[in-house]
Amino acid sequence: MDEVMADAVAEHLSRYNLEFGEALTKADLTGKWVWDAVSPDRHAMLERELRSADFFEVLNVMPDAQRVMQRLQTNYEVYIATAAMEVPTSFEQKYRWLGKHFPFIPPSHIVFCGDKSILLADYLIDDNPRQLKLFKGEGILYSSPHNVDVTGYKRVKDWLDVEKLFLG
Amino acid sequence: MDEVMADAVAEHLSRYNLEFGEALTKADLTGKWVWDAVSPDRHAMLERELRSADFFEVLNVMPDAQRVMQRLQTNYEVYIATAAMEVPTSFEQKYRWLGKHFPFIPPSHIVFCGDKSILLADYLIDDNPRQLKLFKGEGILYSSPHNVDVTGYKRVKDWLDVEKLFLG
Repeated sequence: MDEVMADAVAEHLSRYNLEFGEALTKADLTGKWVWDAVSPDRHAMLERELRSADFFEVLNVMPDAQRVMQRLQTNYEVYIATAAMEVPTSFEQKYRWLGKHFPFIPPSHIVFCGDKSILLADYLIDDNPRQLKLFKGEGILYSSPHNVDVTGYKRVKDWLDVEKLFLG
Repeated sequence: MDEVMADAVAEHLSRYNLEFGEALTKADLTGKWVWDAVSPDRHAMLERELRSADFFEVLNVMPDAQRVMQRLQTNYEVYIATAAMEVPTSFEQKYRWLGKHFPFIPPSHIVFCGDKSILLADYLIDDNPRQLKLFKGEGILYSSPHNVDVTGYKRVKDWLDVEKLFLG
């Protein structure tokens, strides 16, 4: 979900900039997670917001994600798998967010997990190389500022790329 | 989790009996889910309690589950997978319940899912024949009143049986 379906980085930056009066952008994060781009004494603020009651619920949907996902469903059995166990406050928010923005995905096809090694699927589209490495099927790297230098996976830069790759 | 690690049926019966002044027992449920053993006009009460803020959090741990699970971890990579998507109010309760009663299971090995066909594992111990049928590895049926007549799976009647089967 995060960084692939939902724009979590934009929300991190917006809350960070508001709190500290800065103007950090996605371009400033090239090759880094948000945490690595700010000074360590500001990590507590990022953590607090990440675990707040409304962080995940307000995330913007990535462009074209809804339309392409709906098209994918006509040819594939699509599951949404998200590493929600890292942030338990996200469970209900993520569930409601999916119901609001992707109502055509049945709850039976939603997975809140930790390690994605437990998933039995042909493909996993993920921004996190750690999860792609754990996954036993074919990993597809979804471009995000932090992973620009990662190699070894087929890469998609946006949902139009996903559409091209899976629907020709 | 439910009916395997956590005694959800006992909690259903206890709340049902309290509300209607009855004395329904597990023996009365032979071959039936709780829902099938009570009159349809009482289903709303069962649903209400199931979706309440404290149903899953107070469930008793099945006898020997903690000790055997801890022993299993020495020889197996153990994941907890639960069909939580059917009851979204259960997410945080289930997470806290596991942290309280099974603190030795890391969150990275917890899965809240719908269909268990998405799990990549060698074995699944489950009371629900629908999930065992969907699962692609070897399904082990954990005995519960509702599944007494189900055949086609290796059956364990309790955690001592699980211990014998997997640890000799």
